[in-house]
Amino acid sequence: MARLSPNLAGIHCFACETAHDPQQLLTVCRACGLPLRVDYNLSSVNLSLRDLQSREPSLWRYRELLPLLPGDEVSLVEGLTPLLQVEANVWVKDESRNPTGSFKARGMALAVSMAKHLGAQALAAPSAGNAAGALAAYGARAGLPVTVAMPVDTPKAFFDECELYGATIHRVQGTIADAGKFLREHGPKDAFDVSTLKEPYRIEGKKTMAFELVEQFDGEIPDVVIYPTGGGTGLVGMWKAFDEMERLGWIPRGRRPRFVSVQSAGCAPVAKAFLEGNDRTEPWPNPHTHAYGLRVPSPIGGFICVRVLRESNGAAVMVTDEDADAATRQLASRTGIDVCPEGGAAWSALQTLRASSVIRDQDRVVVFNTGTGLKYR
Amino acid sequence: MARLSPNLAGIHCFACETAHDPQQLLTVCRACGLPLRVDYNLSSVNLSLRDLQSREPSLWRYRELLPLLPGDEVSLVEGLTPLLQVEANVWVKDESRNPTGSFKARGMALAVSMAKHLGAQALAAPSAGNAAGALAAYGARAGLPVTVAMPVDTPKAFFDECELYGATIHRVQGTIADAGKFLREHGPKDAFDVSTLKEPYRIEGKKTMAFELVEQFDGEIPDVVIYPTGGGTGLVGMWKAFDEMERLGWIPRGRRPRFVSVQSAGCAPVAKAFLEGNDRTEPWPNPHTHAYGLRVPSPIGGFICVRVLRESNGAAVMVTDEDADAATRQLASRTGIDVCPEGGAAWSALQTLRASSVIRDQDRVVVFNTGTGLKYR
Repeated sequence: MARLSPNLAGIHCFACETAHDPQQLLTVCRACGLPLRVDYNLSSVNLSLRDLQSREPSLWRYRELLPLLPGDEVSLVEGLTPLLQVEANVWVKDESRNPTGSFKARGMALAVSMAKHLGAQALAAPSAGNAAGALAAYGARAGLPVTVAMPVDTPKAFFDECELYGATIHRVQGTIADAGKFLREHGPKDAFDVSTLKEPYRIEGKKTMAFELVEQFDGEIPDVVIYPTGGGTGLVGMWKAFDEMERLGWIPRGRRPRFVSVQSAGCAPVAKAFLEGNDRTEPWPNPHTHAYGLRVPSPIGGFICVRVLRESNGAAVMVTDEDADAATRQLASRTGIDVCPEGGAAWSALQTLRASSVIRDQDRVVVFNTGTGLKYR
Repeated sequence: MARLSPNLAGIHCFACETAHDPQQLLTVCRACGLPLRVDYNLSSVNLSLRDLQSREPSLWRYRELLPLLPGDEVSLVEGLTPLLQVEANVWVKDESRNPTGSFKARGMALAVSMAKHLGAQALAAPSAGNAAGALAAYGARAGLPVTVAMPVDTPKAFFDECELYGATIHRVQGTIADAGKFLREHGPKDAFDVSTLKEPYRIEGKKTMAFELVEQFDGEIPDVVIYPTGGGTGLVGMWKAFDEMERLGWIPRGRRPRFVSVQSAGCAPVAKAFLEGNDRTEPWPNPHTHAYGLRVPSPIGGFICVRVLRESNGAAVMVTDEDADAATRQLASRTGIDVCPEGGAAWSALQTLRASSVIRDQDRVVVFNTGTGLKYR
């Protein structure tokens, strides 16, 4: 039996609130098929930002807000990435500094830890690139076999790292949606599916990005968070984390940053739904971009992303590959940060939102660089 | 005037002890041309390992043992890399988690910080690969122009990252020695030379690896440290750090790990000198290996490396590229660590030393993975 956190209060559907048993290996809501949410009993948690100061330099410092007890984690020491100031009121949260060079490590650390301790014998997921590398690495660390499927035109470095970590790799025509379909039809039947938002724990890893922002801002809250949005787990996770921080008393009630979703002009289902006033995303036809992490045409959690943008008084921006590339070069050459195309898109979005005065000079802005550019070059 | 640490006691030659002025932009000893050593007045430093616990998660936590005061550093948040347990008595110090994916970030953070604050207007260095990327990134962060020279057969990723950070790049026939010669003859005359051990501060950055080992071992000392040795700055730096920790009272007098230098069978000047009982290294003829960081045929600090191996009752191992590659795959697929060829060579050396009982099962061993494998694949 896995040793779950005593603070774990239950697991419920994000959409219909149906309750699920945390002792089971869970996927999506058995009632409606939408993503599940992990809930904590925070009234029993006595933890201040100051308490964190002397803790380990990883996301496991937020132990009371994670689902499992110390000693059971599958870890490569992920999280607590640098927040680098790059202009007067602008910081880059540099997620390239995680294991396997991307923010995907956070989610996979939690998902693989939980899957292993709840009895999974093998793991599988489709990926636009970085999630596959992270899953392959954490599977290797956990001693569990991994199968991944990626679009055939994903850059070579993503396949190479999966191979290095000993994963079984499928190259699939199309996008991550087609890779997911391939795995459902032809993947190993015994492998537990850790696809984005198809199990409850990747969100729990990703939410720690928001804990870190508040800790790194000494308890203050940035005005704007600019986030490249593919599957959207990070956006959903950070919104959840702000709710948890409010209940812990780390931040004042109702104070949130404005969240900005950055998507590619060649694949922008969340931005389109938000800008057109719809609650749900529609599959994006003929998706294309070489910011591969943004090539997610039908995100299962799209409706939650739209909700977050709306509730936070946020925004959405579509960026062309050309603008993203120019912004990548600009940010990297000015700062020494290893910027990926998705991070470049976020930097480009900042300039667009400044030009239209959605972001003003006095706003304190965090731009996410979600991974290393090395795998794309 | 740069704000130097009040603990800075002076700068002396490693070989002839000639004193130099820390307020000057220093290169090598003006008397004998050999590397310079930064000395601290440690009797005035009251700092325990426990004091460090709540400090920033970077090498700047060892502020009292670094040459400049807070606020003057050029930083991308380097150091405090994970120490990952991979077997009962074996840990990997994963230096791939530094900015630009290698241990070179540590040295360049200090060298560029000091060069900038002592008045350098431009920077240059030859490199086997990773040092160039680190210098280009820290130069960008400092706002100083950078020129690098690398052997023409260095993998493309190393050139690409330098280009991204805006450096001027020269591709040179031969090895890092030829690249250095090229820069001396054809490089920019106004650029300060931050070559390995040709200025005093890269050592100061690299020495923090040893502080971290002792801190991460809760004040204990590993029995063996296995270190891939190219220029040898890390080896020299860690030895110096153990001396400083002894004087601070962090470790018992005279307790040191045994240091093992790992070199390539195709370029092993330090290992050869050590194994043949010589005090000085000789230039290695026709050097070749695709563990490019080990292709350093005539390290200026080779004599200090040999001294460290001898004084620590250490060892030296030459590893073929084939054995290093097999070890890279083994370590990565077992652990999820992104192992570079130099790290693979170190893992191979561990197996060799176990087979010959130089390392026993009960010895606590640290193996250095000096960088990410991504740039080599």
